[in-house]
Amino acid sequence: MNVHDYAAQVLDSMDHVGNVYWVACGGSMIDLYPADCLINAKSPSMVSAIFTAEEFNLVPPAALGEDSLVITCSHGGNTRETVDACRIARDKGAYVLGMTNNAGTKIDSGDWPCWVYEWEDDTPQSERPAGFSLALVCDLMAAQDGYTGADAMNQGIAQLDGIIAQAIPQVVNDLGDRFVELCKRHDFFYILGSGPTFCQTYGFAICSLMEMQWQNCCYINAAEYFHGPLECTEPGVFYFLQKSSGVYRPIDERAQRFLETYTDTLMVLDSAAYGMDQLDEAVRTYLDPIFFYEMNVTLRGVRGKAFDHDPDYRRYMGKVEY
Amino acid sequence: MNVHDYAAQVLDSMDHVGNVYWVACGGSMIDLYPADCLINAKSPSMVSAIFTAEEFNLVPPAALGEDSLVITCSHGGNTRETVDACRIARDKGAYVLGMTNNAGTKIDSGDWPCWVYEWEDDTPQSERPAGFSLALVCDLMAAQDGYTGADAMNQGIAQLDGIIAQAIPQVVNDLGDRFVELCKRHDFFYILGSGPTFCQTYGFAICSLMEMQWQNCCYINAAEYFHGPLECTEPGVFYFLQKSSGVYRPIDERAQRFLETYTDTLMVLDSAAYGMDQLDEAVRTYLDPIFFYEMNVTLRGVRGKAFDHDPDYRRYMGKVEY
Repeated sequence: MNVHDYAAQVLDSMDHVGNVYWVACGGSMIDLYPADCLINAKSPSMVSAIFTAEEFNLVPPAALGEDSLVITCSHGGNTRETVDACRIARDKGAYVLGMTNNAGTKIDSGDWPCWVYEWEDDTPQSERPAGFSLALVCDLMAAQDGYTGADAMNQGIAQLDGIIAQAIPQVVNDLGDRFVELCKRHDFFYILGSGPTFCQTYGFAICSLMEMQWQNCCYINAAEYFHGPLECTEPGVFYFLQKSSGVYRPIDERAQRFLETYTDTLMVLDSAAYGMDQLDEAVRTYLDPIFFYEMNVTLRGVRGKAFDHDPDYRRYMGKVEY
Repeated sequence: MNVHDYAAQVLDSMDHVGNVYWVACGGSMIDLYPADCLINAKSPSMVSAIFTAEEFNLVPPAALGEDSLVITCSHGGNTRETVDACRIARDKGAYVLGMTNNAGTKIDSGDWPCWVYEWEDDTPQSERPAGFSLALVCDLMAAQDGYTGADAMNQGIAQLDGIIAQAIPQVVNDLGDRFVELCKRHDFFYILGSGPTFCQTYGFAICSLMEMQWQNCCYINAAEYFHGPLECTEPGVFYFLQKSSGVYRPIDERAQRFLETYTDTLMVLDSAAYGMDQLDEAVRTYLDPIFFYEMNVTLRGVRGKAFDHDPDYRRYMGKVEY
C-alpha cells in the first residue's frame, strides 16, 4: 500500500475528518509537525494538533472521537507512550494510523493500520514519515476541501532527494569546519528557526545535539527571540540560524539582521542557498523542515567525527530502565 | 466590566464559538497558554490553538473566520506583531478581544473590545491575564458545553493569592541561596516542566532568565526529556525541575527519579509542597502555571540581587531598533 492507498482507506472509513491529532515522542513527533502545520494553514474543515504522547495520554482532547484521525509514529515501534496513545484513541472511536520502521513491534500489532517504512540512506523522502504525512494530508484535503496543491507538494517531495544529495557536500564544505570549531569553543549555544522549520530547530537541539552529541544547546523560535531571548545576545555567544526559504523567511531575516549586529559568533544555514529556492514557495514552506533534518544529520556527523563521538552511541537510551 | 461581562459579550455576539485562537508574543503569550490547554482538555465543541503573533500573521489559520474567537494580549500595548494580528483576525470576521496593561495604546484603539488590566504587586490573580482567560473560558464552556467546573476554577483562582503570598518567603528560604550558588557555578542549565506548566518552564527560560538575567538556559518538556535530552545528563549538569501538582505530575515524577539517579545537581520546586495541593486536582492542573510564574519572578529577583543585575534592566528591548 502506498500513501494514496492509506489516504483512501481513511476516507472510506470516516464520514468526515474533523480533527487530526499527531501523537508521538521526540524525533518521531518532530517528523509529523510539517503536516500538522499544513492542515491548519490550508484546511477550512479540519483542525490539527500535535502532542508528545504522554501528555495526550494523561489528558486526551475533549474533542477526540469518531471524527478524529490520530496519526502516530514510533520509529523503533515499542515506545510505550505512543502505543498507549494508539489504544486510548482507538477506544474513543478515533481512526488510528500508526507508523514505524520495525514490522511486528507493538505499534504494528494489527489492532490498527500501521505503515511500516524503510529508513536506509537511500530511502526517498516520499517514503519517510515527514514526506508521507504531507502527501497523506494533501490527499485528505483534496477529497474533503477541494485542495488543489497536492500535485505541487508531491512534486516538491520528489525533488527533495536531489536537492539534499547536492546540498550535503556543499554544507559540509561551507559550514563543517567552522561548526566543529564553534562547538569546541562553546559548551552551549542557541539554535533559531521559525514556522514549520521550528520542529527541526527543536530536533537539531534535542536529537542531533543533546541526544547524539551530548552538546548543550537551546532552541528558540526566531519570532519569539525578539520577546526575551535577544537580551542574551553579545559577542562570544554562539547562534546557529536555520534560515528558511518559504513564507516565514521574513522572521528569520529579521533575526539575522539583529544577530549580525549584536554578536560576532553567528552561523547561518540558508536553505534557499542550497536549492530549496527551486521549489514553489507554498510548498517549500513545508518541505524546508525535511531539508533541515538532513543538514542536522550531516552536521552532527561532522561534529561526531571531529569529537570522536559516534552519533549512534547512547549511555541511557536502550541501556538503563526509566 | 468584569470577566463575566466580557464572556457574555462574546456569547451575545457569536452564534457559536468554534475555534479559539490565542495570539501574542513572549510573556504575554505564555499567560494565555493555560486557558488554551483548558479548552482542548474540556470542551467538545471548541478547538483552541496558540500562536506567536508573527507566525499567525504570515499564515493565518484556514479555519479563521466568523466562528473564531481571537484573544490577544500585549502587555505594553504597542507590540507590532500582536496589533497586526488583531487587524488580520478582525478582517477575517473573527471576534477579537485584546488585553493590555496600558489604556490607549494601539491594541486599545477602540477597533475591538480590549480589557485593560492592572499589574501591581497587589493585583489579584483573577485580575491578571492568566486568571482572567481561564475564567473567561469557563464561562464560554458553561454556556456552550454545559461545563460545570467554573465555580471550582474561580474558587481556585481566588485561593491562589494566599497560597502564593505564603509560598514566596518559603521558596526564598528553601531554594534561594542554592539557586544563586548554582547560577554562579553554571553558565547554562536546563529547566524541566510538563503539561500547562510547560508555558512557565518556557517563561522561566526566555523571560525571567534570558531576558531579565542574561542567564543562558534551555527549557525541556519533561515528557520529551526521555526522548533525547536525557543523554546530556551527568553529574555537574544543573537541572531545575518544576514539579507540578495536577494530572501531569507523573511525568515530572518520572523525570525526578531519573535526575536523582544520574545528576548530582538537581533543584526541584514542587508546587504541591507549597500549598497547591489544597486545590482540586482538576483545577490545580491549570493553576500551577500561575504559581510557577510567581516563583519564577521570586527566583529571578533573588538572583538579580545576588548578581547585582536588576531584572528591569534591558540592553536592547525599548532601546534599539529591530
